[in-house]
Amino acid sequence: MSKTVLILPGDGIGPEIVAEAKKVLDAVNHQENLGIEYSHGKLGGASIDEYGVPLSDETLALARESDAILLGAVGGPKWDELDSAIRPEKGLLKIRSELELFANLRPAILYPQLADASTLKPEVVSGLDILIVRELTGGIYFGQPRGIRTLENGERQGYNTYVYAEHEIERIGRNAFEMARKRNKKVCSVDKANVLEATVLWREVMDRLSAEYPDVELSHMYVDNAAMQLVRAPKQFDVLVTGNMFGDILSDAAAMLTGSIGMLPSASLDKNGCGMYEPCHGSAPDIAGQGIANPLATILSVAMMLRYSLDMPAAAEQIETAVSKVLDQGLRTPDIYTDGMKKVSTSEMGDAVVAAL
Amino acid sequence: MSKTVLILPGDGIGPEIVAEAKKVLDAVNHQENLGIEYSHGKLGGASIDEYGVPLSDETLALARESDAILLGAVGGPKWDELDSAIRPEKGLLKIRSELELFANLRPAILYPQLADASTLKPEVVSGLDILIVRELTGGIYFGQPRGIRTLENGERQGYNTYVYAEHEIERIGRNAFEMARKRNKKVCSVDKANVLEATVLWREVMDRLSAEYPDVELSHMYVDNAAMQLVRAPKQFDVLVTGNMFGDILSDAAAMLTGSIGMLPSASLDKNGCGMYEPCHGSAPDIAGQGIANPLATILSVAMMLRYSLDMPAAAEQIETAVSKVLDQGLRTPDIYTDGMKKVSTSEMGDAVVAAL
Ligand SMILES: CC(C)[C@H](C(=O)O)[C@@H](O)C(=O)O
Ligand SMILES: CC(C)[C@H](C(=O)O)[C@@H](O)C(=O)O
Repeated sequence: MSKTVLILPGDGIGPEIVAEAKKVLDAVNHQENLGIEYSHGKLGGASIDEYGVPLSDETLALARESDAILLGAVGGPKWDELDSAIRPEKGLLKIRSELELFANLRPAILYPQLADASTLKPEVVSGLDILIVRELTGGIYFGQPRGIRTLENGERQGYNTYVYAEHEIERIGRNAFEMARKRNKKVCSVDKANVLEATVLWREVMDRLSAEYPDVELSHMYVDNAAMQLVRAPKQFDVLVTGNMFGDILSDAAAMLTGSIGMLPSASLDKNGCGMYEPCHGSAPDIAGQGIANPLATILSVAMMLRYSLDMPAAAEQIETAVSKVLDQGLRTPDIYTDGMKKVSTSEMGDAVVAAL
Repeated sequence: MSKTVLILPGDGIGPEIVAEAKKVLDAVNHQENLGIEYSHGKLGGASIDEYGVPLSDETLALARESDAILLGAVGGPKWDELDSAIRPEKGLLKIRSELELFANLRPAILYPQLADASTLKPEVVSGLDILIVRELTGGIYFGQPRGIRTLENGERQGYNTYVYAEHEIERIGRNAFEMARKRNKKVCSVDKANVLEATVLWREVMDRLSAEYPDVELSHMYVDNAAMQLVRAPKQFDVLVTGNMFGDILSDAAAMLTGSIGMLPSASLDKNGCGMYEPCHGSAPDIAGQGIANPLATILSVAMMLRYSLDMPAAAEQIETAVSKVLDQGLRTPDIYTDGMKKVSTSEMGDAVVAAL
């Protein structure tokens, strides 16, 4: 019953942080005899350099055969001038879409050890624990028609299509309700139903689903108000569920509330629980290769992977406890460093987590 | 050379706050002999109650004849169950569109007297002064086709169209560059050009325009990053320019950074500078009729009106100075009240501003 994890280091700091996360996964794998095996592939700029495309058929085939994928991050200035069809991000969008990884889970958790890092006042964010459930394979990200056309008067016009069918809304909605059941039993669905018909249907489907989850409280909020409420009183939220684009925006705002985006993991799941795991932060090309990137978001992504895709919750908890322990020990990469703490490098942080296991 | 201002009190707290703002406008009008005359109309729920539609032809005709419009706010639970075509918001969207009020200016300013109200740490927001320039008559708010259709398999699908033509991007871009010239000469254009073609064109047009404004620094930012940066380091921004929907979300987040949305005015201008002026906050039906709403955002909207549509900058400044004075005097409506200040009602606040003129 061995499980295969595909490793996609990606670009920028990706290889460095994935190396540390793999170190940690190796350690629990050995210690607990989990029987995890690895395959290796390329995504984003690294794939463009080798295959000329941001996601090759080879890597996609490996992805389909694996039980879970660990991704670093993609993109960087090196590939910015390329035609948009082969930019690194397109590889990310394609793998999400091809594997139908429709459920993107983005926790925004404030670690008590890092409470000072937030730009918000302590009383507003202390104990913050929100889960953003973002639809990831539909909406305006993938809607057709799309493009730039020339009108009869010679002027150009850019257009995209925001589209959701009932089954797409239903499956992400169920995911949010199920997640809320394991948490504080509150789902807030975010839309713009006062303007966008696509989200009128969204709201209707959420209301319908709600009848099947009487133990979970459903509320609705317009996206502009949600952006405001995240700043005003973020602790009012438990699970936030929304479409692809609103989720992109709100999850980044929510992550930043913690002040330590270097700590936040994410999961992108298909209907069977297979998934791709990656830190919330980007590839940070400006600090790549310097050994100063924070590997903890990627290490915590491994914990999410063990929990959601590999059905090994005990191992997940071991890693989470170890991360908490190294924070208690005062170890900090530069991004989360504050006076009186001990500054460590990317690999020292990885080693410390392994030691704490 | 008299000027006509159309008064649209709207719903909820609208009539109360507009009454105070008109009081203030009357006072400067008299004092400075400005020759301002009034007309009166209805918008939103108030219009639905009287005419059965959220914007009547009568009111629209009055709007076209006026030099500026002062609006309270629209909407409330009373009209929530109506068919979406005649909801209060539709009146707002229609008047924006019919009058081609494409340039929505939303300042997010932190008043030093109210610094404590922010949920952000003082060092992050003190002195905050951002101007969000939001495109208001295009994008996904108005794009066709749109609606909810039934697919061949019987499933329903909701869809909207995000669309921008070059001339729409150009005119809002010019507006942003012109505004920046009078401020700190920095424009940050927000898009999602790594995913949405409509915003690839947006970015291209902004770059092209930039050549005509060599004295203004143009930068680009993805919308998810912009949402993060507003939380992380909002003072990095001077003017932010973006499309209708991103502007809706980001301007509300930016407003909430100040912690006192009851203080923030807005302007919606056409190409000749005619415009509609309204507070950033909503109609707050829960506190309507109690005399506790904060009229200062509407009063400051009158100042914006004098500056941008009526070409009376001295009178605008008089009002802004008077507002600052009443804050210095410690007068506070309940929404901005803190210990040691003097709590006043809606009309007492209006009277105090008049007295301070
Ligand atoms: C890189 C980009 C295409 C991507 C997205 O918008 O989904 C990123 O911002 C994310 O949230 O994972
Ligand atoms: C009421 C609503 C239609 C409106 C909008 O989305 O534009 C409001 O949120 C605003 O920002 O003025």
